[in-house]
Amino acid sequence: MTARHHVLAIGNALVDVITTTTPEFLGDHGIAKGSMRLIPSEEAESLYAAMGPAREISGGSAANTVAGMAALGARPAFVGRVADDQLGRVFAHDIRAAGVDFTTAPSTEGNSTGRCLILVTPDGDRTMNTYLGACQELSEADLDADAVAGAEILYLEGYLWDPPAPRAAMKKAIAVARAHGRKVAFTLSDVFCVEGYRADFQELLASHVDLVFGNEHEVCALYQTKSLDEAMAEIARHACTAVITRSAAGAIVLEGGRRHVIAAEPAARVLDTTGAGDLFAGGFMAAMTQGRSLPDCARVGCIAAAEVISHYGARPEADLKALIKAKLG
Amino acid sequence: MTARHHVLAIGNALVDVITTTTPEFLGDHGIAKGSMRLIPSEEAESLYAAMGPAREISGGSAANTVAGMAALGARPAFVGRVADDQLGRVFAHDIRAAGVDFTTAPSTEGNSTGRCLILVTPDGDRTMNTYLGACQELSEADLDADAVAGAEILYLEGYLWDPPAPRAAMKKAIAVARAHGRKVAFTLSDVFCVEGYRADFQELLASHVDLVFGNEHEVCALYQTKSLDEAMAEIARHACTAVITRSAAGAIVLEGGRRHVIAAEPAARVLDTTGAGDLFAGGFMAAMTQGRSLPDCARVGCIAAAEVISHYGARPEADLKALIKAKLG
Repeated sequence: MTARHHVLAIGNALVDVITTTTPEFLGDHGIAKGSMRLIPSEEAESLYAAMGPAREISGGSAANTVAGMAALGARPAFVGRVADDQLGRVFAHDIRAAGVDFTTAPSTEGNSTGRCLILVTPDGDRTMNTYLGACQELSEADLDADAVAGAEILYLEGYLWDPPAPRAAMKKAIAVARAHGRKVAFTLSDVFCVEGYRADFQELLASHVDLVFGNEHEVCALYQTKSLDEAMAEIARHACTAVITRSAAGAIVLEGGRRHVIAAEPAARVLDTTGAGDLFAGGFMAAMTQGRSLPDCARVGCIAAAEVISHYGARPEADLKALIKAKLG
Repeated sequence: MTARHHVLAIGNALVDVITTTTPEFLGDHGIAKGSMRLIPSEEAESLYAAMGPAREISGGSAANTVAGMAALGARPAFVGRVADDQLGRVFAHDIRAAGVDFTTAPSTEGNSTGRCLILVTPDGDRTMNTYLGACQELSEADLDADAVAGAEILYLEGYLWDPPAPRAAMKKAIAVARAHGRKVAFTLSDVFCVEGYRADFQELLASHVDLVFGNEHEVCALYQTKSLDEAMAEIARHACTAVITRSAAGAIVLEGGRRHVIAAEPAARVLDTTGAGDLFAGGFMAAMTQGRSLPDCARVGCIAAAEVISHYGARPEADLKALIKAKLG
């Protein structure tokens, strides 16, 4: 069967609310710089009231990844839950306008559309405060098994492993994808996700996942070591391909005993690092579906990541296809 | 009585929905490049569905002006109507976080919060498609006469002269301001406003307005001439101070028979010209309240305008105060 989509991603459907701030503001509010944390509705309100004027741009980790893939010519689908409200319509508009199939029905009761309050410091570092809202109401019933079976790659966001209903949906999707011989890709998302679900994530990598993305901190946290070499030795014991991002130090791809080290793409400027990892994964998988070599997949990932950190917002703004063509042919 | 606010502005409370596009898209949708037009709810929906991924940033002409004034250290108030919905909360958050007093109650029934679909072409030119929504429900009842009486300048947006209820509110505000010896400032806003309300606008300038802002096209339209010299001769017959903006050609200030010509501030880059006129007016009036000379007021206006066209969105992002200090002391 020909794949209907190159990738079907399951993730959080969030609108980013982005403002610039100072390290002092973070300190005053007891927020660790560079971290991501989940906040309840009341804290989302009080932090929003305290923060500066903002811009709203659609986000969500896996959603950013597939928006990047669409910009590179792939055919992606996205599954995630928004509410039937203005921010939900903003999310749905933006992801569809980016060229991604998005058909998950919005919820008509319960929580409002999730949002991520992103505080960007002058060094470009982002601190994320996520109110999940409707995201956590995604359930197995929202999955179209035929769509999962018909997608070349199933891509899962580690952030969404926390709420039980979406986790069950992801487990079901994994079973469907594997039954149809599809690839399963997974992103570790964040150190706090890894620490909360270490056993689950280790088991996923050992038994269910063909391709895993994580940064060096997440991979080290997964195996409770401070040594990236030790963590790489552990992750390499699994059959899956592991892609480890290292910010300005580029990326490492581990595959069947081989190790490819790829330099980062120099960024024109670093304004807001939000989405760097998401766009890396998007570039990597888009290149995979075009049959590029693993080192070239990582190079495409690095180019996509360099574009997204040069402006506010975690979705591509430049013509990614033209950028890749100019650099890699 | 000491002024409670340096300026009290009455205008449209809009959230801008900004996307990049091509001249071909505008042509295909029969939209004149560089124009501003009002669109009904259904067209707002269909145009939004057709346009690309967007970012939402609070806008509204007079609202942008007072946000710029607050960034320059003035104490402004804003009067305008949003609905009690997510975009209304975004507007209220952003203008308050910018340092502007905003207390107009949101409407709990009727239209949703107004928005402006802004299509930016690669030359930085913006084409605006405005759904006024709740904006038009502003009425005399929303005016706090004490606040109007206590503000140094009453600033009115020509765009809002069209719907009858806000027009009545503006007329009442003018009467209150004049009764208390306050200055009344007015922006012509757009050629289509001037053409729709030429007699009203001429009468306002002749009898009720101390300071008027307009670009060369609006001023020419006001007196139905193609000659800027002729239009300037007409406008100079009124007692009020007239400030005419000319994009890259800078600005001209006409006052009591004198004419000051001010060069534009070179912009670092021109990404999105939305808000250039709004921020010019904001810089001008902020400088006035600091007692600067009229030519220096226009210089501050040019610097504020140059900042806002260097990025997407019509609210300042850089530290305007520091910019002005570096350039004018």
